[in-house]
Amino acid sequence: VVLTGGEVDTIAGLLSLRESHAFTLYAAPPVLGVLRDNPIFNVLNPALVPRRAMMPGERVALSDAAGEPLGLTVEAFAVPGKVPLFNEAPEGDDPGRSDEGETIGLALSAGGAELAFVPGCAALPPALKQRLARAHTLLFDGTLFRDDEMIRAGVGRKTGARMGHMSLDGPAGTLATLDGIATRRILIHVNNTNPVLLSDSPERAVVERAGWEVAEDGMEIVLP
Amino acid sequence: VVLTGGEVDTIAGLLSLRESHAFTLYAAPPVLGVLRDNPIFNVLNPALVPRRAMMPGERVALSDAAGEPLGLTVEAFAVPGKVPLFNEAPEGDDPGRSDEGETIGLALSAGGAELAFVPGCAALPPALKQRLARAHTLLFDGTLFRDDEMIRAGVGRKTGARMGHMSLDGPAGTLATLDGIATRRILIHVNNTNPVLLSDSPERAVVERAGWEVAEDGMEIVLP
Repeated sequence: VVLTGGEVDTIAGLLSLRESHAFTLYAAPPVLGVLRDNPIFNVLNPALVPRRAMMPGERVALSDAAGEPLGLTVEAFAVPGKVPLFNEAPEGDDPGRSDEGETIGLALSAGGAELAFVPGCAALPPALKQRLARAHTLLFDGTLFRDDEMIRAGVGRKTGARMGHMSLDGPAGTLATLDGIATRRILIHVNNTNPVLLSDSPERAVVERAGWEVAEDGMEIVLP
Repeated sequence: VVLTGGEVDTIAGLLSLRESHAFTLYAAPPVLGVLRDNPIFNVLNPALVPRRAMMPGERVALSDAAGEPLGLTVEAFAVPGKVPLFNEAPEGDDPGRSDEGETIGLALSAGGAELAFVPGCAALPPALKQRLARAHTLLFDGTLFRDDEMIRAGVGRKTGARMGHMSLDGPAGTLATLDGIATRRILIHVNNTNPVLLSDSPERAVVERAGWEVAEDGMEIVLP
């Protein structure tokens, strides 16, 4: 298991895994700190689930629980993000961007081609864009279409920026910034307010014209 | 939301509730301590989700998020249990029974009849049995049929007793001890090794002959 951040939707699934299941858990040091600060994660018995710090630029050859190599390597790279919601101050002031390495992206490779997995991204500095350009297939943060769509829909008071997510639309949005990057581009981590989930929405047409797919349950991805 | 213990299967669901959903959270003081010790539960904004200590014998009239009474009262009673697995010592020595109030049962009443809800119970002292005798309908810990069935099935090394659960079978088991208690008796919290889940198993026939039902998804319960 490789964690890309310390937010609830990234780490709570660890609590649903079968007791006494053996695997190795990789995460950035600040995320290992989140797990350490929450004793509920001791339910993962350290004798069966060793925790390993994953540093940006380190290539790790993944193996199964018996130590057999899976023929898959993973490399982490830092991504602008935000501290987990539950570690924000109770009053809800915006803690601002965090580039301390809580949030990472993953480059997976098997054979030769690379797949980049970035479920949360607050901004795209040039070095990150260059890193993503090496991927054949890019799975990228598609949380919101417009930064204020949750407010407009009356379901929340936060913008995408406040939650640590770039949005798809606009001149500094994902569609404009990642135009032409990677052979195959797929939106993941799509919020239920995002109209790209509707196959007949104008917004879906916009992302498809820009060369993006919207991920769906059971999707299989083949690298060349 | 009323918590009956601090084990992962009892509290982790709090992390899957929709953000900014308002409700009141009731739990025994040791369980509120577990939540306090795990900052991930700060995702439940204290302005929207007040936490209230529930003491054995205290009757609480439940209301909805807007404060409207639901016509339902709940009363907690202490039940023998075990500290949560993730708070056990790492080496796995048996921490033994805990009667410190981590584990509670609930008596729900609406109109006049009472339903008792006891998803985990390590033993049945006489006072607890007397308390359960007041219920019209009893939902009770049906984790294992035989104390050693997980070991026999090769899926674990723990007995039911080690996990803080009475088992159904045997002279000190639930079927014998709760014989004749309550008008309607339903097994809940049934482990996937328990043969009573199979409608054609000899063990299912045994529990049915003893006047027990096995709970199922979508079950509706009507009190007289």
